[in-house]
Amino acid sequence: MPKIVDHEERRTTIAAAAAMAIAADGIEAVTMKGIAERAGVTTGAVTHYFADKDEVVLEAVLFVGASMTERFEAALASEQPLSEALLAALPHDAESRRDWTVCRVFNDRASRSPSLLEHFRASAEGSLRMATEALGARSGPNVKQVNLDAEVVVATFDAIGDAASADPVSWPTERQRRVVEHLLARLAEP
Amino acid sequence: MPKIVDHEERRTTIAAAAAMAIAADGIEAVTMKGIAERAGVTTGAVTHYFADKDEVVLEAVLFVGASMTERFEAALASEQPLSEALLAALPHDAESRRDWTVCRVFNDRASRSPSLLEHFRASAEGSLRMATEALGARSGPNVKQVNLDAEVVVATFDAIGDAASADPVSWPTERQRRVVEHLLARLAEP
Repeated sequence: MPKIVDHEERRTTIAAAAAMAIAADGIEAVTMKGIAERAGVTTGAVTHYFADKDEVVLEAVLFVGASMTERFEAALASEQPLSEALLAALPHDAESRRDWTVCRVFNDRASRSPSLLEHFRASAEGSLRMATEALGARSGPNVKQVNLDAEVVVATFDAIGDAASADPVSWPTERQRRVVEHLLARLAEP
Repeated sequence: MPKIVDHEERRTTIAAAAAMAIAADGIEAVTMKGIAERAGVTTGAVTHYFADKDEVVLEAVLFVGASMTERFEAALASEQPLSEALLAALPHDAESRRDWTVCRVFNDRASRSPSLLEHFRASAEGSLRMATEALGARSGPNVKQVNLDAEVVVATFDAIGDAASADPVSWPTERQRRVVEHLLARLAEP
């Protein structure tokens, strides 16, 4: 009887391996063979799911995006303040640093690939929506203000994520917290 | 009589060609030969100045960093408001988009290279210092507040630059201006 393969699970295993490879070795050094070795599957299994490097990077960014959103939403669901939810998604350990490194590589490729750019936009709009909701929940009915506040929150969040994943020593959690809390306090002013 | 080569000028020509190649083709596709062709010099001339791709990327980022700083400082020197000076450095044409694309590629490599990381830090500290001075010039003596405000300004600036160079359509100058002016207005509140 042929072995039953759980395709979703296998795709996720390969996406996770691709994310690790991108963060550890850099996208230039990433090969289908290297991803297969990390995932414990054959190279044929990788090329079965992903036609080229762009597809690998897309799957990797979907994987790390889900991981970041999960940390953010789990913090909000456990009644933590918005600042702590943002910090939960920001780089603070190997996994979260990996997530942001993959995002940076993805952004770069999206700038030259229409199909990746489509996902880049959807993801950026998703972040903005989440920030608008989170800020709207704590502020009044000034919708225009909340939208622009959300733009600043997302931008600050993205830039800290980028810098802290590239240079963790300069961006310990304490510095991230100071900046995020300062911004949110500024935006809480009427 | 041997031709006199202006080494500084030649380095700059090669750095500019490298920056264009990185932005147009992506760092993976960049070769010493391709840079030489763009610069109109021999491949030997490129390898004479730059031992490897990391050195090329460093020289390219120094080149685009100077270009961004020049636009920012020229705007401030001509009495334009801080928002316009930031917009002058942000992506709004082929040259400024190139600058930010090179920065993103550099940040990624810096995360895996101690020598590039050193420059990454120096550059980040320089941005923070410039923002602190610019904000300090218009605000009172609350130094702690100004430092944290500067962190938010630099972060917002960096994230807009990253997003707008990857996705110019979603980030026209008008949207950049709205976000930057909104943030500076927020920070001008006492």
